[in-house]
Amino acid sequence: MGIVTADISTTLDGFGSGPNQRLERPFGDLDNAPLHAWMFEHGEENAPEVAGILGAGAFVMGRNMFSAGRGPWDLEWRGWWGEEPPYHAPVFVLTHHERAPLEMSGGTTFHFVTDGLEAALERASAAAGERNVAIAGGASTVNAALRAGLLDELRWHVAPVVSGLAADRAHGGSRLFDGVPAHGLEPVSVRHTPHVTHLTYRRG
Amino acid sequence: MGIVTADISTTLDGFGSGPNQRLERPFGDLDNAPLHAWMFEHGEENAPEVAGILGAGAFVMGRNMFSAGRGPWDLEWRGWWGEEPPYHAPVFVLTHHERAPLEMSGGTTFHFVTDGLEAALERASAAAGERNVAIAGGASTVNAALRAGLLDELRWHVAPVVSGLAADRAHGGSRLFDGVPAHGLEPVSVRHTPHVTHLTYRRG
Repeated sequence: MGIVTADISTTLDGFGSGPNQRLERPFGDLDNAPLHAWMFEHGEENAPEVAGILGAGAFVMGRNMFSAGRGPWDLEWRGWWGEEPPYHAPVFVLTHHERAPLEMSGGTTFHFVTDGLEAALERASAAAGERNVAIAGGASTVNAALRAGLLDELRWHVAPVVSGLAADRAHGGSRLFDGVPAHGLEPVSVRHTPHVTHLTYRRG
Repeated sequence: MGIVTADISTTLDGFGSGPNQRLERPFGDLDNAPLHAWMFEHGEENAPEVAGILGAGAFVMGRNMFSAGRGPWDLEWRGWWGEEPPYHAPVFVLTHHERAPLEMSGGTTFHFVTDGLEAALERASAAAGERNVAIAGGASTVNAALRAGLLDELRWHVAPVVSGLAADRAHGGSRLFDGVPAHGLEPVSVRHTPHVTHLTYRRG
């Protein structure tokens, strides 16, 4: 059986998204460019980490990763990724709204899970077989997995920018480790490229 | 002329100290052990980073680094470090209270600066000559330097623990990057040992 991993890109101050998330702006007031440039514009320099994300046998993602500001009950919405999403595997989307599975090209099928993170991870684990299950974000879903002790490996991709959102404690953004109780992790590896620092931790 | 560096140890969620700082507990409710074990218990594995801290020609530190929960006007208080502090150089302590310089053994003299961070950095720079000036923390002093654009190099030492303090947005702890406006930094190097990950950034 594989392990449960999570990949999350944040600013130096831990923000994975800003306030005012909406469909055309899934990272809210936080600029998407510095946060994900390492993956979308500099994928070759960061090839091992991109491969690490996409190598899972199944994925779990929070609702806002699929449809920020819009419900999955909007049946016209088929995700951000065009007709052939990069996952090539089953993706279990956490939501409060039932929806039939959505089969895309290239092996990606979005399944909508209404009974919580643990149930989504169980279904993903069954689908992944011997391969890993990857939590694809966002920060609040990763935090929920850390809180519940369900995560084996955290892969934290830190963009070299300060968000400025932490100026306001009532920021409304989504911040890694918020609400996660005190605990230790085991540092496994670090690597940096000009656009990101990759930090990997295992369950402590 | 040297540059202005800052060294700060925090948890994964960026806390350099917890609430309820006081003299016998300078890191407040945040456990000192995992935060600074890399330096005090595993100094050999982290020798380059310890040397990096102590290699400066002069230091600037926030008041709580010198005398959390106690005023420097308490003339019996001579700092945490015994009669021979590890700095072996002038240390400029930010405070609101005048106090005569305090000369210790081994070349450390504490100077108490009441006219702010920029003045302290100027005095430290004059004292350091060709060598670097190091901001020795805490997080709120590092944040002030980042805010004012006074920092050339940030050396962030991340302990592999989550503080749990971010569960409460009114946490009262001191968190790196809080109140720092949006800006980019240049990643210079990363290194990890079992007890800490060392991240170095330059002015972007």
